[in-house]
Formats: sequence, structure tokens, C-alpha cells
Amino acid sequence: MIPQISTIELLKLASGDTFALQVYKFIGNNPGKKVYIQANLHGAEIVGNAVIYELINSFSSLEEDTIAGEIWLVPVCNPLGTNQRGHLFSTGRFNSYDGMNWNRIFWDYEKECIDLEEFARSQINNPTELIRKNYLQKIQTAWQKQLEKIQKPSSAPWRQQYRYQLQSRCLDADYVIDIHSSSTQSIDFIYCFQERQNNAKYFLLDYGILMDKYDGDAFDEAFLKPWLALENEFSKLGKDIKFDIESWTLELGSGMTINPESVAKGVAGIKNYLASKKVWQNSAINHSYSINLLSRKNLINYYAPTGGMIQNRLGLGVKVKAGDRVYQLLSFNKQQELPNVIDICAETDGIIFDISTNQCVNQGEYVLDILNF
Amino acid sequence: MIPQISTIELLKLASGDTFALQVYKFIGNNPGKKVYIQANLHGAEIVGNAVIYELINSFSSLEEDTIAGEIWLVPVCNPLGTNQRGHLFSTGRFNSYDGMNWNRIFWDYEKECIDLEEFARSQINNPTELIRKNYLQKIQTAWQKQLEKIQKPSSAPWRQQYRYQLQSRCLDADYVIDIHSSSTQSIDFIYCFQERQNNAKYFLLDYGILMDKYDGDAFDEAFLKPWLALENEFSKLGKDIKFDIESWTLELGSGMTINPESVAKGVAGIKNYLASKKVWQNSAINHSYSINLLSRKNLINYYAPTGGMIQNRLGLGVKVKAGDRVYQLLSFNKQQELPNVIDICAETDGIIFDISTNQCVNQGEYVLDILNF
Amino acid sequence: MIPQISTIELLKLASGDTFALQVYKFIGNNPGKKVYIQANLHGAEIVGNAVIYELINSFSSLEEDTIAGEIWLVPVCNPLGTNQRGHLFSTGRFNSYDGMNWNRIFWDYEKECIDLEEFARSQINNPTELIRKNYLQKIQTAWQKQLEKIQKPSSAPWRQQYRYQLQSRCLDADYVIDIHSSSTQSIDFIYCFQERQNNAKYFLLDYGILMDKYDGDAFDEAFLKPWLALENEFSKLGKDIKFDIESWTLELGSGMTINPESVAKGVAGIKNYLASKKVWQNSAINHSYSINLLSRKNLINYYAPTGGMIQNRLGLGVKVKAGDRVYQLLSFNKQQELPNVIDICAETDGIIFDISTNQCVNQGEYVLDILNF
Amino acid sequence: MIPQISTIELLKLASGDTFALQVYKFIGNNPGKKVYIQANLHGAEIVGNAVIYELINSFSSLEEDTIAGEIWLVPVCNPLGTNQRGHLFSTGRFNSYDGMNWNRIFWDYEKECIDLEEFARSQINNPTELIRKNYLQKIQTAWQKQLEKIQKPSSAPWRQQYRYQLQSRCLDADYVIDIHSSSTQSIDFIYCFQERQNNAKYFLLDYGILMDKYDGDAFDEAFLKPWLALENEFSKLGKDIKFDIESWTLELGSGMTINPESVAKGVAGIKNYLASKKVWQNSAINHSYSINLLSRKNLINYYAPTGGMIQNRLGLGVKVKAGDRVYQLLSFNKQQELPNVIDICAETDGIIFDISTNQCVNQGEYVLDILNF
Repeated sequence: MIPQISTIELLKLASGDTFALQVYKFIGNNPGKKVYIQANLHGAEIVGNAVIYELINSFSSLEEDTIAGEIWLVPVCNPLGTNQRGHLFSTGRFNSYDGMNWNRIFWDYEKECIDLEEFARSQINNPTELIRKNYLQKIQTAWQKQLEKIQKPSSAPWRQQYRYQLQSRCLDADYVIDIHSSSTQSIDFIYCFQERQNNAKYFLLDYGILMDKYDGDAFDEAFLKPWLALENEFSKLGKDIKFDIESWTLELGSGMTINPESVAKGVAGIKNYLASKKVWQNSAINHSYSINLLSRKNLINYYAPTGGMIQNRLGLGVKVKAGDRVYQLLSFNKQQELPNVIDICAETDGIIFDISTNQCVNQGEYVLDILNF
Repeated sequence: MIPQISTIELLKLASGDTFALQVYKFIGNNPGKKVYIQANLHGAEIVGNAVIYELINSFSSLEEDTIAGEIWLVPVCNPLGTNQRGHLFSTGRFNSYDGMNWNRIFWDYEKECIDLEEFARSQINNPTELIRKNYLQKIQTAWQKQLEKIQKPSSAPWRQQYRYQLQSRCLDADYVIDIHSSSTQSIDFIYCFQERQNNAKYFLLDYGILMDKYDGDAFDEAFLKPWLALENEFSKLGKDIKFDIESWTLELGSGMTINPESVAKGVAGIKNYLASKKVWQNSAINHSYSINLLSRKNLINYYAPTGGMIQNRLGLGVKVKAGDRVYQLLSFNKQQELPNVIDICAETDGIIFDISTNQCVNQGEYVLDILNF
Repeated sequence: MIPQISTIELLKLASGDTFALQVYKFIGNNPGKKVYIQANLHGAEIVGNAVIYELINSFSSLEEDTIAGEIWLVPVCNPLGTNQRGHLFSTGRFNSYDGMNWNRIFWDYEKECIDLEEFARSQINNPTELIRKNYLQKIQTAWQKQLEKIQKPSSAPWRQQYRYQLQSRCLDADYVIDIHSSSTQSIDFIYCFQERQNNAKYFLLDYGILMDKYDGDAFDEAFLKPWLALENEFSKLGKDIKFDIESWTLELGSGMTINPESVAKGVAGIKNYLASKKVWQNSAINHSYSINLLSRKNLINYYAPTGGMIQNRLGLGVKVKAGDRVYQLLSFNKQQELPNVIDICAETDGIIFDISTNQCVNQGEYVLDILNF
Repeated sequence: MIPQISTIELLKLASGDTFALQVYKFIGNNPGKKVYIQANLHGAEIVGNAVIYELINSFSSLEEDTIAGEIWLVPVCNPLGTNQRGHLFSTGRFNSYDGMNWNRIFWDYEKECIDLEEFARSQINNPTELIRKNYLQKIQTAWQKQLEKIQKPSSAPWRQQYRYQLQSRCLDADYVIDIHSSSTQSIDFIYCFQERQNNAKYFLLDYGILMDKYDGDAFDEAFLKPWLALENEFSKLGKDIKFDIESWTLELGSGMTINPESVAKGVAGIKNYLASKKVWQNSAINHSYSINLLSRKNLINYYAPTGGMIQNRLGLGVKVKAGDRVYQLLSFNKQQELPNVIDICAETDGIIFDISTNQCVNQGEYVLDILNF
């Protein structure tokens, strides 16, 4: 099975060179769902490119009738982010031009849909598939206005021109998977919407973080929130509808790194998920993986209380009890005193879930996360 | 009149060196209001330091009984921002560590005060001064929890540690003035809250932009919004109260620049405002300056529709009609074609209000603002 | 006359996108010299792109027989530099990856030609044109080894891969013109080699700086120094040879800026130079422009003796006498003292030749240049 | 034994805050040599601070008469470098202002001492200690001119003001140790001058790289080269003199990291070296550690031949044969083609000596070093 490969011009640079998106589409013989998978939205988070490469290889060896629907794959989906450097390091978590986090820029239709209740009332007697079609139509009509703004002489800031290209590829998808990693160093896990948490287990990862609070305008949120809002509106009207529309963010290990185990887990999880959704047909499905689902509130970030050098920090995955020392700060001064070492202890039980790559910290810089449970 | 000068340790750096805040306080013999004036929150916006220097000189030549209340002056209020460089340029509009805009980080009590209606009801029969005192007490109690968070082992990210120091200096102020400039190149103007717009004229500037939409967590907003919310709550309860509490953001010219005319305007405006508030006593007051007050919606940002070099752009203050050419893009390519020049025309009438310092633009980068009126 | 336009793939980025060079070649009907003109080697120095655009337009309106030889034009010759940003600013004076100044990376054959004396002896009885041909052959043989290094598995750092592409276009040129501007803000001038200074006047600029000391591995140096070395070697052997090979660096105004007057001067100067060299035939030649030629030693850089804000600095082109105040530093402190203002005075007579764009300086940052004469 | 602690004001920042150096001096009761040890000249190379902290602890527990001479310790010797960030990472290998590598800025008296032969002749009959004293005097007289330049109104760029402070602390030292690490990830080793290689073994490290070619203006070179030049001058005059003056650069592991094993090795090596020099008296000396000393030419840098993602790279310390695959590049494109994987193979036998932290590479970015032997 050979993918269709399409290249979309993305960004004209000052030099006259251009950046592009390239989409690999595996379109099955059988009708079905549309799956959209992207990687490397944040510049340092390259692991998903290797996952997508493995998926391309896997799907390429399949027959057309093994796939129902279509699978779109977009590696290196943010060239400006991927190619950005600060010294030797990938600093493309945010745009160096305006500081905007590349995953807080997306268009969330929920925020501008002021007539949602009215729409829900008008659709209440329609079958779910028709409602889905009508709501998608409504979303796309609003989306068109974004393009009109971009095409005016005043145009729009890059983040809006960029999101237009990216979201245009997936507004009509059924399942969206955005592959990230930590900016620093982390355990593998998945971000889940509470309303879709039952399916998180299909990704075969040990940990899932429930997004009970939104970051705002993230890619996964921008895709799913409008549909959750409509479900909620129907619920208020006494009708229970659940669209078979889902959005997931995989976090596969550490930044600037392609960890082979994380790649293998990501590939296995996505395949199992596609099988569970019958997109990948006739494939065995693991229905019984046990995932730890925990609220985002359980993830406690530790920041340096003063400037210094991190020493003797516990490693990723280590279990701690409240009161255990989790790291030390070797702290210097310019007041004619000896340097000193400060112990920092865990506030709660949990495991070391994420750690900074940099052991040199100014006051208030990030040191580690403990997942409390 | 000699100011009290106090130095507050702010930030311990990895090297063991520290950054500090230094506050100059002119405390009059007569009781009165507290005015808090800071400058250089964004690293490139240095003009306000010169304004504060002039104010220090002016106040130093006054007698103690000329001032009612106290005036706190905080130049270079964000050392991490001021000292930050990207090549030769001041890039401290946002923190290079996390991309956070230094003026979108402040603690806005309105967002966490969930019992505001109840509080308003409890105070409805109190005199305004007592309500002010009680509400300030309530704010400060909540503020204390920010400190408790910072003092835990997990501490808090630098932006929260920083805002704690800065906002602790002015939570109890009556009037707050935050002196900024454009990041790029701009006309002098003032940002005004709609509810306080009548006093904008005292700053003797030609243009005022009304904040009918908030940016979120800006310094001026974080100070005033809780008080506006309480006024609004009383209004819903049928009681009209207006606290004599105000917040202003001056925008004095261009980034990385101290324009003497902008300094002179800033100094004159602040003096007149202080006179109008009777903080500076026995000083003549200009009550009749004519300011153009326009909504933020009237400020239209132009972004590059493609990459290239800006040529023949109209200058600051030039009046345009809709359809007039405002700039050209000299656009190169790598497709064996000749370079070409693209005309970009005004969408509306207005004046050129702000322009980019950089005439080299990637697609979607900022070019200019037109103030439409 | 229509240029040949060729596109050369330059750089494959991590995202799979590529940057290219695009060369515009005007090839006359008559045999003659090869002129190579490039612009924007340093990312912020965009003015030369506009000069080249004007030259393309001019040459396009000529008949083929007006040009003897060929003129190669390479605008935006360093896409990685041009597209680089630090916040809103063009920071591509050096590579953000390794800090290497883009104009100190070039291959200077003089440094590796250990048998120059032997070669000179072997050629001493040859006519100049044959010596030129033989020496160029020798250079190109050595150059080939650079390519071999790049093609090994260990390849070479980007600066060496880049210079290979750029210098391969001009090793065989007769005249090289590299169009720069100040990184900050400057008067228009030209950098001249002492041995070619007599022709500097043809560029019709008021000031020329003589490179009596080399920066090392600059583009102009790398092109011309091997030929000067050979001339010198012949001179030692008692033979006076001067190759009609020249290299010039134009400095046209300020960074991040396209100043129309600087563009006009650059275009006029290059045309007059081409006319003087008979490349542009039948065009009037101005032989008598009076240029101030001064040693690089006369250009005195002023750096901030302490940190602060620059005030009251004299403007570009202002004449000063030794002892005149050239700027002030408004200097703050964190030792409970009042801010103070420091006067900095000229060490010599001269004119203000270049000034920093940023008026906010840490100790030791650049403030201005005085050209002493 | 309590160290003398002195604080030297170093740098006044634009905000009015200052950075300082702090020197810890252990001065023994017995006369002897002066040892100068610094750490963290490059911002990311923090490991040496922990080494110095351990040394302070060790020396503090000694009696005064255990030390002959004095030991000066300067941790975090470059605050501007240590505190610099690009996103989450330490980017202070070079100054973000001008791109200058902090370890290529030092004053090398050899380069300006034009009368060295004459001086050598004048001293040829003096005893070594007197020659040392006279030459040091000569160096310090020249050094004084650096200060005079800094104190002029035009002052000097920060790198020259900075080196003045740092080199003033050690011009008169006998032994200089500069503790670095890789910018990325590396095996522990030491840089040795050929003329002093016999003493490298005392540092108890497995690898030493001989500096048969100089980088130019590095800290270790700037200290020792003038003395080597004088030795060489005497040698030409037929007199063999070797000053007991040495300079060493330790490379202890990886950037942004404090690896406890590297710290332990660094501490043990320095102690053994001090014992071998009789600075630390009555301590056992290991004279017989076997170090691999190899020329810098044996260290072969591998750069990415095209852009992509590094996969399956061999780890630090792995032995390779010429032709073995050392890494793969997963390379994407925007030409409607499938991504592909490229094998890169070793050019020589050797071990993997240093690897990039970032596995995402634009063409020409650094991938790894092989030490060939």
C-alpha cells in the first residue's frame, strides 16, 4: 500500500526560501474514519517523527483492504520550530519572535460559537451522524472567516497563518493524535480528556494525565472542545450524545532525543488504538492494558527556591515519600561566605515524573515534577 | 526633600549573584494618597527610567509639605528583562527561559474572588473608605497564600516569585502608573480603562487607547480589575460606588530608545496628573487638554503576507486613506524568477501609529499599526 | 537583456526543507571580466538586496552588447542568517548555533599555500594572464580538497559547507563586491585594500576605510589576499605585477533598514565602478570623486565604562573635538543611592561614524564609533 | 584551615545590579607555589563548581602547615555566562551579545612581546628564579596598558574588561587549572601542553589530548604560552630552561550536568597533582597512573551531511572499527518522497569520545567525535 504524498507550501521566509508541510495519506479500500497524526509541533520534541516513520513503514506493507478509512501522517509539522536553535539546543517550544508557545495558538471554535444552545435545539431530533455533519459544516463556515482575515492586506500574525494550514488538514478528522515529548526528560504517558478516558488504555502506556483543567488553545483541545461543548449542550437539553471523535496527546520520553523504547511504545500503542477503532482491520486488539489515570493536579512542579547547581537529584521513575530529599542545591554567593548545600524534600508521596535537562538554575527555574498518587 | 531609598533582594542567580529592586519614596508631610510609578517592565522599554530620573530630580527640589501622601518610584523594575540581550538588542519583552511576556504574568484577584457578591452585600451599608479598607484586607489575605506557595519546597516559577515582589509594593496604592514604550517605534499615548477615562486628559498626551478588551494579567489590569469588579458588583446591587483608585500605562515612544521629547511629555503629564490628584499640592493644573480616546479595536495590526524586505513604508504619524499604499515588500524567491515588489494598501483611514524596527520580515511578522479614526 | 537565473540547493534543514542560493547572471555579448556581487551575508544587513534589485532592473533594460563579460548577482546570499530572529530583531551577524561571525569563516588560500615562493619563481617569465590562469588553477586544485572533506562521512561544520557553495561561485571572478551595512547605524562608506585604494573613488562614497590590518577570513580578504600575496612574492623577486583583480566591501547605512539614499548611492557607485572597468560599456565615468581614505586605526570604538542608559548622544555625522561630550550614561544602582549621570567625552577629534541602535547598555557594550581625522 | 574570601566587583549591568567574582584563598603556613583553579568559564560547564566545593571542604579540614604556598579557588568565574539562558538551556559558551567564545578572549603576551629575543639575551646568565621574576615583571608592565585602555573614555569591549579581572588574579600563579566539561556529552579527559605532558598523569584521568595546535587566546594558552615562548627563545640561544609553570584544562563529563563520578575524578586528580607539586604536603602521591596521550588531530569531529534526526548512534566509550556504522540520519523531505534513513560509518578506528545532546540536526550541525587510536 503506497501513501499519497502531498506537499503544502507553508511559510515564505525573508530570504525567499519556503517551508512546507508534507502529508502522507494511507487511504484504505474500505470506507471508514479519518485519523490525523502529527509530530514535532514543539521544535525539540522529535521522537514522534520516528514513530511516524515506523508507521509509514508498517502501513506500506499492508494491503489496501486492511485499512478502513484513511490515515494522515504529518511528521515535522512545524518546520520553524524544528529548525530553530539557541546555541546547540532546540529551543522551538515557543516562537523566538514573539514568545508564543506553539501549542497554545490554535483556533478553538467553542470560544466563538455563541449560538450553540440554539444550534443544539435545532438538531435535537436529528440522528447523530447528521448532527455531526451539520456541526462540522458550521465549524467550517466559521473557519472560512479566518482565511478571509489572512487574505486581507493586514493579513495575520504567523501563528494564525500557521494554524490555518495545520487545522485545515484535520477539522474533519475523527481521531487526532499529536505526538509530543517532554521539553526536558520524562516518563512516557498520554494526555486524556475526561470524557474520552475510557479509550486511553488502548495506547498501552502506564500513565495517563486527565485534563480536568485546560491550558487553552492547545492542538488537542482546539480539535475536541467544540464537540464536547455540543455534547454538553445536548446533555443540558436532556439528550445524551457522544460523538465518536477523539483527541489524544502522546508524550514519549525526552526532548532532543529519540529513545527507541519510547518509539516502540508509541508505535505499538497507536496500532492498538487504530485496531480498536477498526481503522486497522483484522488486527488483534489489546483491550485490557492497565493504565494509571491521574488528574493534572497530581503533577506537582518543583522550581528552584534560590539559584544554584542541582546535585543528587533522584532519577526518573523513583518513588518518593513526603519528606524524602529529592534534590540538593549547591548555592554560591558573593557575600564573602562559603558556598552551601540546601536539601529540598518532597511535599507528597509520588514518583519522579519529569526532570530538567539543565542542572544549573537561576531562582525560579524548573527542577522536576512529582506525580503524586 | 530627600527620598527614602530601599533595596529589596529580588533574584538569586545560578552564579550566586543577585538582582534587586530599588524603590525611591518621597513621603510628604501631609497625609494623602499613595502613588506607585514603575518603569522598564519590558526589557527594551527604557524611556521610563529617564522619566523617573527627572521626577526624582524634581521632587528632590520640593519642600516636604508640597507633597500630600507618598510617591514611590521604581526604575529598572525588571532587571532580568533589562539586562537580557539577543545579539545587540534588548529582547526582554518576554523571558527567554519560558517565553512568558513580562506584562502578562500578574496576579489578578478578580479571577479568584468567588465570593465577591457576598462580600458586596456585606459591605453595602458601609462608607466607601471602610469598604476600600475591608476589600484591601481581603485582597491581602489572598495574597498571603501566594507567599505560602512560594515558600513551599516546590516553590514557584520565577514569574510568580517576581510578581510577588512587585505587586507587594503596590497592592495598597491609590494610583499606579506603569511606564512603557513600544517594542518597536511608536507615537506617544496612554492606555486607559473605560471606567477611568475621564482622567486620561491629565497626562497631556494626544492619544489614549481604551482597553475595552483585556490582554489578561497585565500589570495595570491586575491592579485595577478587582476594584472595577467590586464597583460593578455594587452597581448590580443598585449602589453606585467609584473608588478613587486608578491605573495607567504610559507608552512613550520607541523601544531601546530614550527620546527626549517623549521623556519631557511623560514628565509633564505625570506632574499634571499628580497635581490634579492633589498629591503635588499648589501646582497649576491643566484641566483642558484634548485627548483622542479610541477603542483598542481601532488599532489595526499589519503583518507581512509573505516574506521579504519592507520598502517605502509611510512614517509614524502619517495620515492615510483606505486604499493608500502603506508599504512595499521586496520579495525574493528560489524558483528561478525575478524578485518582485508587492504593494500593501491601507484597509481603513487612519494614521500610522507604530512601525517595526526591522524591515526584514518572514511571512506573518509585524510591519505596522494603523490607528483608524 | 534577460538574466540567466540559477538556483543552487544550499542547506537541508532538520525539517526536510531546504534553503537555496539564487544567482542572477547578466552575460554580455562581448568578452570581458567576471563581476560577482552579493548582499546580506550578515542577516540584518538587508540594504544590498535593494541595491541588487535596482541593478537587476537597470541591467534588464540594457542591450546585450552593452555588457562586456558577465555580472553575477546574489541577493539574500545567506538564508540562515537572513531568516534568523532574536525576538523582533535580525540577529544573524553570527550563527546562533556556534557564535561564528558569518564574515569570518571564509577559505583564505594564502594561509595554506606553502609553496608560493616556488610557484612565483616558476612563473616569473610568464605573461601576467598566464600567471593568473596558472595560479587560479592552483587555487582550484586546493579548493577541490575542501569538497573532498565535505563529502567524507565526517563531513564538515556548516560554515565550511556554506563557504564552499559561496566561494565556488566567485573564485574565478575578477571583481568581487560584497554589500554590507552597519549592524547598528552608520554613515555610508567602503572598505578598501591598500593595494587597490586608487580605485575606491569610483564608488562615489565620501569615506573609505583602509584595511591595513585584517580581521581574518572575511569574504573580501579571502578572495583577494592570495593574489596580493603572489604580487608581493613577485615583488620580492624583483618583478612588479598587479593583477586586475579587486575586492570591495560596501557599507550602506544601518542594519535592519533599507535607507533609500544609501540604496541610491550604492547603485550609482557600482554602476560607475563597472563603467570604469569597461564592464558596462559606453557609460559615462566619473573619475574625480573625492573620497576620504583613512586607516582602520582611525576608527575608535567607544564601549560603556559601566552599565546604564545612553542619553544625549551626538548624532551620526556630527563633528567633535577632543574633550567634547559625546554621550551620557544614566546609571542606576542597588546600593541605596540616587541614580547618576556620567559624561563621556571624545578622546580625539573626528566625526560620529556609527552608533548603537540600543541605548540600554551593560558594562562593556558598544556605544559609538568616532572616525578620527 | 579557613579560607580568605574576597569579592571583586566585576560587571555593572544596565539595571544597576552588579556581578562579582569571589575568590577562596587557602594560604598555608609554609612558603611555596601559587595554584589558581577556576570553574565554569563556559556557562554550561558547571561540574567544576562541585569540584571546587569539594576542594573547599577538603582544605578546610586541613591544618595550615599542610599547605605550602597558596591555593586560589574561583567557582562560577563567569557569571554572565553561567546565568545566560536560551529557553531552558545554558547557552553561555559564547556571549549572546557578540558571539565571542568565552574561552577565546584572553590576553596572550606572546603575541605582543616583540623583543623576546633581546630579553632572553639579557637574561641568559641569570638564575632561573630571577629570570622568572624579571619576565613576570615585564608581563605585568604590559598588562598595565590593558588597564589604561579600559580606563579611557572609550573603555573596551566587555571581553577585555572581563579578562582583565580574571587574568589579574593569576598572572603570577605557578600552576593554573581551568575546569571545563563538554558543551554536550563526553568522556573525562585533560588538555595538555606538549612541553608539560609528563605531568599529565598526576591528574589520574584515562585520556589526555595534546595541544599540538592552538585554538588561540584560550585561558590555558594565554597563561602558559609566553613562558613556553621564552623557553624556546633560550633554547635557540643554546640554553635549556624549563620554568616550573604549568597550565591545565580538565574536561569533566557533560554540559549542564554534574556527574558525581566526574566530580570524584576531578577532585582526586587535583589533589594528587597538588601532592606531586608539594603544595599539599605529606600526602601520598600516585606517580604511576597510565594516561593515553593523543594528539588533537586524533579527535575527529563528525557533522551532519544533511538535515534530519539522529538515530541508533553508538554511545560514549564504544569502540569502533573503520567502516562500522556510528549513527543513522532519519531524513525527511518536501519533495513528495518517502522519508529515508542514511547510515554514517566511521572513517577510522577509535572510540566514541563526545556526542551531541541534540539528536535533531540541520545540515552541518555537530553529531559526535571519534578519538582515533
